[in-house]
Amino acid sequence: IGIKVREILSVADRHVAILEALGRASQSSNLVIMTGGLGPTKDDITKFALSCFYGVGMEFHQETYERLKAYFAMRGRAMDASLEAQCNMPSNAEILTNNLGTAPGMWFDSEGIIMVSMPGVPYEMRHIMETSVIPKLKANGSLGVVTHHTICTGGVGETDLARLVENTENNLPPWASLAYLPGVGQVRMRLSAYNITAEQSIIFEKIAKELEDKVAKHTYAIGDQSLEETLGKMLLAKGKTISVAESCTGGYIAHKIASIAGASEYFRGGVIPYHNDLKIQMLGVKPSTIEANGAVSEQTVREMVTGALALLKSDIAIAISGIAGPSGGSEEKPVGTTWIAIGDRQNTYTRKVNFSKDRLRNIEFDTAIALYLSLKFLQGQEFA
Amino acid sequence: IGIKVREILSVADRHVAILEALGRASQSSNLVIMTGGLGPTKDDITKFALSCFYGVGMEFHQETYERLKAYFAMRGRAMDASLEAQCNMPSNAEILTNNLGTAPGMWFDSEGIIMVSMPGVPYEMRHIMETSVIPKLKANGSLGVVTHHTICTGGVGETDLARLVENTENNLPPWASLAYLPGVGQVRMRLSAYNITAEQSIIFEKIAKELEDKVAKHTYAIGDQSLEETLGKMLLAKGKTISVAESCTGGYIAHKIASIAGASEYFRGGVIPYHNDLKIQMLGVKPSTIEANGAVSEQTVREMVTGALALLKSDIAIAISGIAGPSGGSEEKPVGTTWIAIGDRQNTYTRKVNFSKDRLRNIEFDTAIALYLSLKFLQGQEFA
Repeated sequence: IGIKVREILSVADRHVAILEALGRASQSSNLVIMTGGLGPTKDDITKFALSCFYGVGMEFHQETYERLKAYFAMRGRAMDASLEAQCNMPSNAEILTNNLGTAPGMWFDSEGIIMVSMPGVPYEMRHIMETSVIPKLKANGSLGVVTHHTICTGGVGETDLARLVENTENNLPPWASLAYLPGVGQVRMRLSAYNITAEQSIIFEKIAKELEDKVAKHTYAIGDQSLEETLGKMLLAKGKTISVAESCTGGYIAHKIASIAGASEYFRGGVIPYHNDLKIQMLGVKPSTIEANGAVSEQTVREMVTGALALLKSDIAIAISGIAGPSGGSEEKPVGTTWIAIGDRQNTYTRKVNFSKDRLRNIEFDTAIALYLSLKFLQGQEFA
Repeated sequence: IGIKVREILSVADRHVAILEALGRASQSSNLVIMTGGLGPTKDDITKFALSCFYGVGMEFHQETYERLKAYFAMRGRAMDASLEAQCNMPSNAEILTNNLGTAPGMWFDSEGIIMVSMPGVPYEMRHIMETSVIPKLKANGSLGVVTHHTICTGGVGETDLARLVENTENNLPPWASLAYLPGVGQVRMRLSAYNITAEQSIIFEKIAKELEDKVAKHTYAIGDQSLEETLGKMLLAKGKTISVAESCTGGYIAHKIASIAGASEYFRGGVIPYHNDLKIQMLGVKPSTIEANGAVSEQTVREMVTGALALLKSDIAIAISGIAGPSGGSEEKPVGTTWIAIGDRQNTYTRKVNFSKDRLRNIEFDTAIALYLSLKFLQGQEFA
């Protein structure tokens, strides 16, 4: 949002540690944003520490009291003492309404330094940040202008990406920076600059384009966007539906697809035939296919795609079968070995991958690659 | 592991910021553990900053070179200059082998202060922590003795828990502390003490027992253990299998169950009938049931359980149908309304929940409650 982060500090729930951190932060920064420690339990001591830091008393905040009373009445519950305590606020705080939970946020402006305290529950914090903090920062002119250009890549590591863009990166102007933000099976490359001139902005665009061109074959989106978001948009744009047949990933691909709002427009559903008899019974995989090739094989995932298209009545299907580990591997098929197939009624493409990390990493990696390959499939590209 | 965390600091990838943080940390702490910034890309500058902090040069580490050469040979790739640079290490560093990635860890011991630097990739860090750092800290006597007692609860908020244990918490001895660690749909309560005497240990046990008794009806495990871990152990112990039929959670319950190593012993698989026609076709839900009650109803999830038991051939089935949001709600069934059913061939219990947060929170909450209720079902308890 156009603010340079100096540092991020986590402090223990001890009064003196919080006071010390507040003192230090107020000496090094113009803006201090805090989260957590505002709940009703005994280890929530941030609000009291803030009143001590400013040397002010606590005041009962009637508006918060009314809001909480309504909040609990709606849930069929009465207020009690611990909740009334939540209405006592440092007297110099401007209260930031929390529409999603009990503890309100606080805004302090003292000696030119702004301190903001918000509940630690992520979606409550995000809500107060969006509805109160960012608008207030915008209004008082605290926000700079940050320019980001994000390139989302899949199926390639940061070392390989760095090699592809080496020349561009070595010649970056001092006012621009390039960050590699790696996730499992994907890396986002983010070019950034703060408060640049119109002239610098033209150079920025040129560099962004250069980076884009150099990593084009690994790119799935320009702009900060998850694989599943991109997949959803692309399916909607093409008017296609998708389904999944997951063995080793155990529902994680379906979860990723279904996590996007509006997914029911294009996600038909899925099956998780964790055992071979279910692959045969639900998806019509031939017993002879599994006997001859094993459940983790190209032939099996191909037949799973065919079965999923028929059973789940989608235009496209993803099928996956692998050895998530830690056990179940063999010399020929070590832990991590996974076959992925993506297909429609005309074509099915397959890919073998082996990430071979721990169980959860394998599941996350296989899921990311399956989503990435689905995008390639929809774009009519060979798996790159 | 018996070390008191003073603070956790995140520093920007800028040379001076890192030096300043190292200087400050070395003045306040005996042990400084760092992660990140050791990769091959240009924004990875921690190793160089450490050599500057100690005022030492870089030395080529032959052993790391041999390890990396083998690592890349195995993957059919050659070493290049950026990887060779990864073998240059500050001359005063003791190298900690990284068996799961390229960048090794480093151990510094200077003027009585130990600094450890590890790669930021979580499983690589965890590996080096377990195989090198903790054993070395143990060997040099740095570790205190921490006593934890963790009570895992489900389906109840921290405010309610705090109310239940209020008296115990108000009378805690000064050497013990109680933390509430909230997750979505679950809260872990952790009683802790450092380096306590035998006498204090007896009191600690007594307090732990008191806390346990007071929250017993919401407890699913004693000791730090996830819902899905507990479910797996209980299914194994009872020799039962489970399956899922998920609509609104879109595969997330299956993912949680399948994320546990060895889940194939008790997890039969699942179906995700995201659309009503699939609920009817795959699970045998009666069209008239959906017409009369809607897909989000007690009757529908009951029939989904029956269908899942038959189709997936498990002893127990979880079925869920709800409105994850943000759209799809009505006055009668607002966003978040979810019906959960757990059943076997004799009994099926149901529960209606409504978390009504954002889409992903609803999915996580519904999943946690479904897993929690499955545990209650297995224990033969009424849903509490």
